[in-house]
Amino acid sequence: MQYDREKEVEQLGSNKTEYRMDYDPSVLEAFENVHQYRDYFVKFNCPEFTSLCPKTGQPDFATVYISYIPDKKMVESKSLKLYLFSFRNHGDFHEDCMNKIVNDLVELMDPRYIEVWGKFTPRGGISIDPYVNYGKPGTKWEAFAEKRLVQHDLYPETIDNR
Amino acid sequence: MQYDREKEVEQLGSNKTEYRMDYDPSVLEAFENVHQYRDYFVKFNCPEFTSLCPKTGQPDFATVYISYIPDKKMVESKSLKLYLFSFRNHGDFHEDCMNKIVNDLVELMDPRYIEVWGKFTPRGGISIDPYVNYGKPGTKWEAFAEKRLVQHDLYPETIDNR
Amino acid sequence: MQYDREKEVEQLGSNKTEYRMDYDPSVLEAFENVHQYRDYFVKFNCPEFTSLCPKTGQPDFATVYISYIPDKKMVESKSLKLYLFSFRNHGDFHEDCMNKIVNDLVELMDPRYIEVWGKFTPRGGISIDPYVNYGKPGTKWEAFAEKRLVQHDLYPETIDNR
Amino acid sequence: MQYDREKEVEQLGSNKTEYRMDYDPSVLEAFENVHQYRDYFVKFNCPEFTSLCPKTGQPDFATVYISYIPDKKMVESKSLKLYLFSFRNHGDFHEDCMNKIVNDLVELMDPRYIEVWGKFTPRGGISIDPYVNYGKPGTKWEAFAEKRLVQHDLYPETIDNR
Amino acid sequence: MQYDREKEVEQLGSNKTEYRMDYDPSVLEAFENVHQYRDYFVKFNCPEFTSLCPKTGQPDFATVYISYIPDKKMVESKSLKLYLFSFRNHGDFHEDCMNKIVNDLVELMDPRYIEVWGKFTPRGGISIDPYVNYGKPGTKWEAFAEKRLVQHDLYPETIDNR
Amino acid sequence: MQYDREKEVEQLGSNKTEYRMDYDPSVLEAFENVHQYRDYFVKFNCPEFTSLCPKTGQPDFATVYISYIPDKKMVESKSLKLYLFSFRNHGDFHEDCMNKIVNDLVELMDPRYIEVWGKFTPRGGISIDPYVNYGKPGTKWEAFAEKRLVQHDLYPETIDNR
Amino acid sequence: MQYDREKEVEQLGSNKTEYRMDYDPSVLEAFENVHQYRDYFVKFNCPEFTSLCPKTGQPDFATVYISYIPDKKMVESKSLKLYLFSFRNHGDFHEDCMNKIVNDLVELMDPRYIEVWGKFTPRGGISIDPYVNYGKPGTKWEAFAEKRLVQHDLYPETIDNR
Amino acid sequence: MQYDREKEVEQLGSNKTEYRMDYDPSVLEAFENVHQYRDYFVKFNCPEFTSLCPKTGQPDFATVYISYIPDKKMVESKSLKLYLFSFRNHGDFHEDCMNKIVNDLVELMDPRYIEVWGKFTPRGGISIDPYVNYGKPGTKWEAFAEKRLVQHDLYPETIDNR
Amino acid sequence: MQYDREKEVEQLGSNKTEYRMDYDPSVLEAFENVHQYRDYFVKFNCPEFTSLCPKTGQPDFATVYISYIPDKKMVESKSLKLYLFSFRNHGDFHEDCMNKIVNDLVELMDPRYIEVWGKFTPRGGISIDPYVNYGKPGTKWEAFAEKRLVQHDLYPETIDNR
Amino acid sequence: MQYDREKEVEQLGSNKTEYRMDYDPSVLEAFENVHQYRDYFVKFNCPEFTSLCPKTGQPDFATVYISYIPDKKMVESKSLKLYLFSFRNHGDFHEDCMNKIVNDLVELMDPRYIEVWGKFTPRGGISIDPYVNYGKPGTKWEAFAEKRLVQHDLYPETIDNR
Ligand SMILES: [Ca+2]
Ligand SMILES: [Ca+2]
Ligand SMILES: [Ca+2]
Ligand SMILES: [Ca+2]
Ligand SMILES: [Ca+2]
Ligand SMILES: [Ca+2]
Ligand SMILES: [Ca+2]
Ligand SMILES: [Ca+2]
Ligand SMILES: [Ca+2]
Ligand SMILES: [Ca+2]
Ligand SMILES: [Ca+2]
Ligand SMILES: [Ca+2]
Ligand SMILES: [Ca+2]
Ligand SMILES: [Ca+2]
Ligand SMILES: [Ca+2]
Ligand SMILES: [Ca+2]
Repeated sequence: MQYDREKEVEQLGSNKTEYRMDYDPSVLEAFENVHQYRDYFVKFNCPEFTSLCPKTGQPDFATVYISYIPDKKMVESKSLKLYLFSFRNHGDFHEDCMNKIVNDLVELMDPRYIEVWGKFTPRGGISIDPYVNYGKPGTKWEAFAEKRLVQHDLYPETIDNR
Repeated sequence: MQYDREKEVEQLGSNKTEYRMDYDPSVLEAFENVHQYRDYFVKFNCPEFTSLCPKTGQPDFATVYISYIPDKKMVESKSLKLYLFSFRNHGDFHEDCMNKIVNDLVELMDPRYIEVWGKFTPRGGISIDPYVNYGKPGTKWEAFAEKRLVQHDLYPETIDNR
Repeated sequence: MQYDREKEVEQLGSNKTEYRMDYDPSVLEAFENVHQYRDYFVKFNCPEFTSLCPKTGQPDFATVYISYIPDKKMVESKSLKLYLFSFRNHGDFHEDCMNKIVNDLVELMDPRYIEVWGKFTPRGGISIDPYVNYGKPGTKWEAFAEKRLVQHDLYPETIDNR
Repeated sequence: MQYDREKEVEQLGSNKTEYRMDYDPSVLEAFENVHQYRDYFVKFNCPEFTSLCPKTGQPDFATVYISYIPDKKMVESKSLKLYLFSFRNHGDFHEDCMNKIVNDLVELMDPRYIEVWGKFTPRGGISIDPYVNYGKPGTKWEAFAEKRLVQHDLYPETIDNR
Repeated sequence: MQYDREKEVEQLGSNKTEYRMDYDPSVLEAFENVHQYRDYFVKFNCPEFTSLCPKTGQPDFATVYISYIPDKKMVESKSLKLYLFSFRNHGDFHEDCMNKIVNDLVELMDPRYIEVWGKFTPRGGISIDPYVNYGKPGTKWEAFAEKRLVQHDLYPETIDNR
Repeated sequence: MQYDREKEVEQLGSNKTEYRMDYDPSVLEAFENVHQYRDYFVKFNCPEFTSLCPKTGQPDFATVYISYIPDKKMVESKSLKLYLFSFRNHGDFHEDCMNKIVNDLVELMDPRYIEVWGKFTPRGGISIDPYVNYGKPGTKWEAFAEKRLVQHDLYPETIDNR
Repeated sequence: MQYDREKEVEQLGSNKTEYRMDYDPSVLEAFENVHQYRDYFVKFNCPEFTSLCPKTGQPDFATVYISYIPDKKMVESKSLKLYLFSFRNHGDFHEDCMNKIVNDLVELMDPRYIEVWGKFTPRGGISIDPYVNYGKPGTKWEAFAEKRLVQHDLYPETIDNR
Repeated sequence: MQYDREKEVEQLGSNKTEYRMDYDPSVLEAFENVHQYRDYFVKFNCPEFTSLCPKTGQPDFATVYISYIPDKKMVESKSLKLYLFSFRNHGDFHEDCMNKIVNDLVELMDPRYIEVWGKFTPRGGISIDPYVNYGKPGTKWEAFAEKRLVQHDLYPETIDNR
Repeated sequence: MQYDREKEVEQLGSNKTEYRMDYDPSVLEAFENVHQYRDYFVKFNCPEFTSLCPKTGQPDFATVYISYIPDKKMVESKSLKLYLFSFRNHGDFHEDCMNKIVNDLVELMDPRYIEVWGKFTPRGGISIDPYVNYGKPGTKWEAFAEKRLVQHDLYPETIDNR
Repeated sequence: MQYDREKEVEQLGSNKTEYRMDYDPSVLEAFENVHQYRDYFVKFNCPEFTSLCPKTGQPDFATVYISYIPDKKMVESKSLKLYLFSFRNHGDFHEDCMNKIVNDLVELMDPRYIEVWGKFTPRGGISIDPYVNYGKPGTKWEAFAEKRLVQHDLYPETIDNR
């Protein structure tokens, strides 16, 4: 599942990208991290995430924040966009979506560290925000993930549903 | 008190859910955490909490933030909504409400970690914000709770009663 | 040092106002406007309004802004608080609540001008904000109300349900 | 296309509402305005609008503000939600979506006045916000609409794409 | 009640100004407007206003905005500060305080136009904001005041009591 | 200079659009307004405008807001993006850029009404914001433009250069 | 200085509470903490604090944030309000007021931990914000207080005196 | 006092501009308006204005907003910066500074319309904001100025001195 | 350099304090810390700092935050104001100003801990914010300073130069 | 690559600095840190960063925050401005730009610690924010960098692409 320039060109060659409408991790593409000598963060801000509620079929909406420290590979941003769009007509619970995104990106990139935070809009007056993180097992990044968990969200943002 | 699909369907079958009007923890429902292999947070933002003052009978209002790391069970969100609504015509002090919510959710889910923060509107120019947290006794989550307490609210939000 | 229910009840005999739990305009009290020589506004900001949905029984929440120009009478603010609290366990549609408040305050005070704006929290991703105004018929205040209607809410506040 | 209590009950009887996935104005339902003796505004804040770009197939996102002064009929809010959701997999330009919403709601309710403002997220660094309004032809509401147009958005909100 | 340099020097000569603790309009001082050839606004922002509730004796707090177009005289700002401080231990209703400030400043300066807006902190969940304006009778400033009244506060600021 | 579907496809066929690096109004494309029966606004928010200072060669940055009421033609948004990018290495004064944009879009679309507001970042502690508007001569839109000019920016946004 | 029900009743019996006008810690009342099995925070937001400058007699204004972890006793909130009001006509320096509040509440409640942060309005262009904290000597709460001190206010809020 | 290219070059030729430290309107430079065929606004945001209090010698600080519609001439922005800096060690009252700026810029440019709004930091808890405007006498711009005065600052920004 | 009551009175006796116009640390006055038994913070918010650029002579502006834990002495706030004003016509680089303030206050008070953060307005599109801290050498406060340095400004405030 | 006063003067002598239009680290200039006895931060806020996308040629925009603790040398701010401007017509990926800036500034100054955070505007609904830090190898600053990485961005700012 390495980065494939040809495929990319192909994809860009048509200006009508085929947006998949059900969950499809196979659209994810990776490329090489040319700064492997360094630990650094890359964050994606994704305020246009939408999926369907598996119980009621009603659309759900979230802003998703994805932050990771790459090892050998990085996720290509246009493929990430297509991947996130593939949840559009897919039914899944909030916490399952966030766990899946972590699992799929770990599968793709095998990163040193990754975290995903989804902030959903309310249903019935309550909104739900799952936060999932991961450090590569057997490395110092496991402790890194634990340290971030203990400091997670000590200051809940003010929510008034407006 | 395990998750019961039938009951849920039942509940959803009538579109006129019976909203209990006095404190009733029995409405809480749990379901299984399918990601027990991982420590992750789920947060509920609940800006529509209201109860009655036990001294004056006057309605109180708060935004309540509930954040937890599940172990084997998770709280079903619609049942949480009904549970919080059951405080509506119930008289209780601010700090007792928040401690009760922690106790009831611990009873229901036996989570690794949980915290509840209520931010009430003022009476007589002063507002009160209780913050209660809990880590499963005899596990590393006790220390986790202590670490979060020492870092709690170092930056009080600006309050001007307007 | 325990809480003493008896004493409290006694004591509230004077300062324990009886909070009515269904819609009751009879609690409204008026007093004389001592500045009748002048047209001026009084505004009440009421962020703690709650009622019940007549279809689902679910609690609704709103911030209500009431603004008026008194004629001979003014509404006493503590009685207004009791009046608004009387919607707490009363079922009514958003736009009917706002129209009723205008009608009841007109009945009480016969003001030169009055307007009521309710801003509710969302259900199913959509929130509803009714705005009702009134100028005393047969006076210049009718045109006053029309001018304010044409300028109403040209800048919708940013709503993101969070 | 009058308000039909039976149909409404029917719709609510199943807790799995069928969310239509292509543009369908037939889901819109009206009910009677019981305050026809008065001109007043009802506003819907709809931050969860999404459609598809007809050129690229890429999802578009907007917050849509709908504000109207009813005449004899009002739009039922749950049916409005279903109607807006029906744009989810429908391809249309921003300004065409907004004009269609006005046209469909005029067809449904024949209101005194209506306006629809869509605020979309950017593509290529530029975001587009169409604003469409309408006053019933041959009535004073035509001039009402013109007056609001001349005052429209004199204070563009600060946009920095973040 | 003209501006008196001597008195000013006197006042400044002692660095321990005597702060009057009950309402005292006699502390107000005026000086000459040297730009009488022009209509212009001067606004005072006064976020440190406090008085006592005449019913309960409880302190009240407000931000007061005073805005005027001078004619021949202007109010000296240090004397205005002393005047506003003189409400500190004085009991009066919100709307009476604001009307008195207008009356006292009209008495002092005979301005072309003046307006005073008080924004108080809530008691029992409701806050009260009186707005009083005045245009010199028999001049074009009467119509000026009316035009501002019809446009007053079309956008109530968001109040959540926090 | 009518809308040309072929040319558009051509442009989209290559995913490496040629970004012109000096001012070039010829990249602008128009298409037909299918809602000519109605007066409505379309606004473009463009926070990524940059040009060069003609005196010092230093880059200038602005957010540009373009708002218009179309007549027969509308500007195609991708071509607008290319047009604005063509200022990137072009030297021109702030107020000349804004006037040119109005002139070029009038030339392209012959709109009923258009306005352009540029908000630049400071140089030497001062920032400059030109606002230019236009109504079609000999029509009611001339008066429309005048009315908007008299109401322009009565509330300067708070600027502190941070 | 134990909690005294009689006194409380007395106090509540008259709805015209006597507001003491000079510093009086004897008004403070305590009650029992019924959750002594747990460490939790209670915070009071007090935006209506005012005292007098001991040098100039000029009124000072602050928002005071009081946050503590109770041991056996808790401070009754209405008595805290009266206590803070008792500074109204009392002359004291900013840092002395904040230290006194800590000392008086320690004397009253003997809490596990307490902190008090005052944020005053400026005089001569500078505002002063004292922050005082305390952990019960000879317990782990001493280290708790030190840890909070080292993390105190690493992010000064933006102050521009407006 | 026409625009003089030579002088400008001269000024820019030395990178150590001589900053005048007392009020000096002679530094102002004008240049030709090349868009005289159109009425448009140019606004300068000047958050770095400072002068001295003529009574106490204490420095005063303000943000000054200058907005005008040019006729034949425009003010050169670097010369405006030098002009505003020339108030740095000059003693003058707030309202006199703002009136002087209007008078000097009218003298320099003879504009169609101009307005100047100064927003100062507080002294003794009160801040002062003068607003001065001007329309060319004997033209329609006089009425233009009057219309803006009647709409001036209907929404005072929230000031809390922090 | 101890606190000198006489001198203070002298200074206040004249209401026209002599504001020194070049850097003068000798104006700083200290007084005794009466709470030496406790470690606590005092913060000064100083949004009215201005100096001159030593290269161009152009005025620079900053908000300066000064925060310290006193030992035996505290800085008198009016003298601090005069000290900061003494930079007004003094030429110095941003980072040198901030280091000097730390050095002068250490010299004056010999505090346990002190930090100074200057946030300047931009020149040429870039703003500079130096942050300097200090813990008394040979005490635990050295480590205190290091801990704060490692946590400094992990969340840069959003800067857009507007 | 030491600081060269002559060169600086040269550069300032011409008021038309030559802005390089492709990436050029040779424009960077250093000067001596005169406070080497102390560890302190200097931060540059750079909201006017722009480069080109290497795939599409489209301009990219970011706010870049650069923060460092100097050792013997510091970067001269005008040269930093020119260096950042040299990315203007240069094609590079977001994370490569940020890594390059760190590498070039390490090469120039050999600092104790440095970090660079870029916050870009979105393309296709997603924005990317790389964060790179560095501590001098073989010194305590390596651990310093690691500690800051583990605490990086625990509170993602709210992004909605507007
Ligand atoms: Ca909100
Ligand atoms: Ca507030
Ligand atoms: Ca919102
Ligand atoms: Ca929000
Ligand atoms: Ca921004
Ligand atoms: Ca945003
Ligand atoms: Ca608020
Ligand atoms: Ca608030
Ligand atoms: Ca700003
Ligand atoms: Ca402020
Ligand atoms: Ca403020
Ligand atoms: Ca503030
Ligand atoms: Ca900013
Ligand atoms: Ca700003
Ligand atoms: Ca934004
Ligand atoms: Ca936004």
